[in-house]
Amino acid sequence: MATVFEKELIGLKERVLKLGSLVERAINDAIKSLVERNSALAAETIDRDPVVNSLEVEIDEECIRLIALRQPRAGDLRLITTAMKITTDLERIGDLAVDICERALELNEEPQLKPYIDIPRMAEISQGMLKDAIDSFVKRDSVLARDVLMRDDMVDQLNYQVFNELLFFMIQDPKTISRAVKITYISKYLERIADHATNIAEMVIYLVEGKIIRHMVVSGEKK
Amino acid sequence: MATVFEKELIGLKERVLKLGSLVERAINDAIKSLVERNSALAAETIDRDPVVNSLEVEIDEECIRLIALRQPRAGDLRLITTAMKITTDLERIGDLAVDICERALELNEEPQLKPYIDIPRMAEISQGMLKDAIDSFVKRDSVLARDVLMRDDMVDQLNYQVFNELLFFMIQDPKTISRAVKITYISKYLERIADHATNIAEMVIYLVEGKIIRHMVVSGEKK
Repeated sequence: MATVFEKELIGLKERVLKLGSLVERAINDAIKSLVERNSALAAETIDRDPVVNSLEVEIDEECIRLIALRQPRAGDLRLITTAMKITTDLERIGDLAVDICERALELNEEPQLKPYIDIPRMAEISQGMLKDAIDSFVKRDSVLARDVLMRDDMVDQLNYQVFNELLFFMIQDPKTISRAVKITYISKYLERIADHATNIAEMVIYLVEGKIIRHMVVSGEKK
Repeated sequence: MATVFEKELIGLKERVLKLGSLVERAINDAIKSLVERNSALAAETIDRDPVVNSLEVEIDEECIRLIALRQPRAGDLRLITTAMKITTDLERIGDLAVDICERALELNEEPQLKPYIDIPRMAEISQGMLKDAIDSFVKRDSVLARDVLMRDDMVDQLNYQVFNELLFFMIQDPKTISRAVKITYISKYLERIADHATNIAEMVIYLVEGKIIRHMVVSGEKK
């Protein structure tokens, strides 16, 4: 039978999963509001961000409570402190989804520059990375976490591609500049979401294997 | 006389200060390498980033050790967990300084678009915010932390101004687009550095006053 503390740890993981799914939904809706030019959805998504923020604070409080009350050692303590660091990344991803919505609201006021192809692809990969990063935390699965790291390059590559394509548009027709720059911003936001997922995955590998691979050269850029 | 644990806490604060000063220096040198077109300095600054990364990991390890060994209660526990969250922000600021250096290296390869005026101003404000945010943590000074929050709007305003000015350049002369977009990125990086300083200040206010003002409307944008 599970002890009270074991149940509390399960509850903590469930809350982290919940926060992750809120944030995944925010990314999804942000991109949908852009691609489908649905400004109402962008506004709704922005309005939902405080829920993410309060859940972050709630999880942190629960972590502090568990540390103070249960005085966990070794593995459990690391699990709890990792959860506290992961919430920071998740909350920032929520902010980036808001940033995407804000640019979508602006872009939806003007004629569409071009159909979005690479941006939804980037969003799909980043969301997948995020989902797997959180799952790897909950399941303590460092193989899955390593798989997340491998995908970061694809997003960087797409970001580069989007930038170059839009540069071409801008040079051809200066009337497109304002819109094109905003789209390059969205591409950067998605790249940053993938970076946060990568950070989470690196923390999970450290939690599970004890190997510090945070900030090491994994597959490409060193950060 | 200070107990061993009290000395350990002082040591922890000193390391956070050290990490803060490394990161401040990185911002300073990144902007200097841009303004003075000094690519060697940009490269050196990028090369120094691993020191920031290892110090972040070191501080986190010390925090976990202190929690496990000293089983701190209430105030001390919060101080330690806040330190662990602050290191994440500081490390990300280090990454943003690297991002600035990378754009500086690219920009230094081309003729200078215009003299930099607002960018060094933004950097100065952001650095000041960062310095005060860390000082407010070390001194548990929530008045200073609140002062940091007040300055975030200035940076947002300058970022907006830089964007509009560069948009004008790009529209006038498409040959400037590639450079101008890179400068808008640098402006965004600085805005994000100010956001991280704001996050740190909000955590300090919570630590000292117990009031959750993280992610609340302080003076302008809600995040």
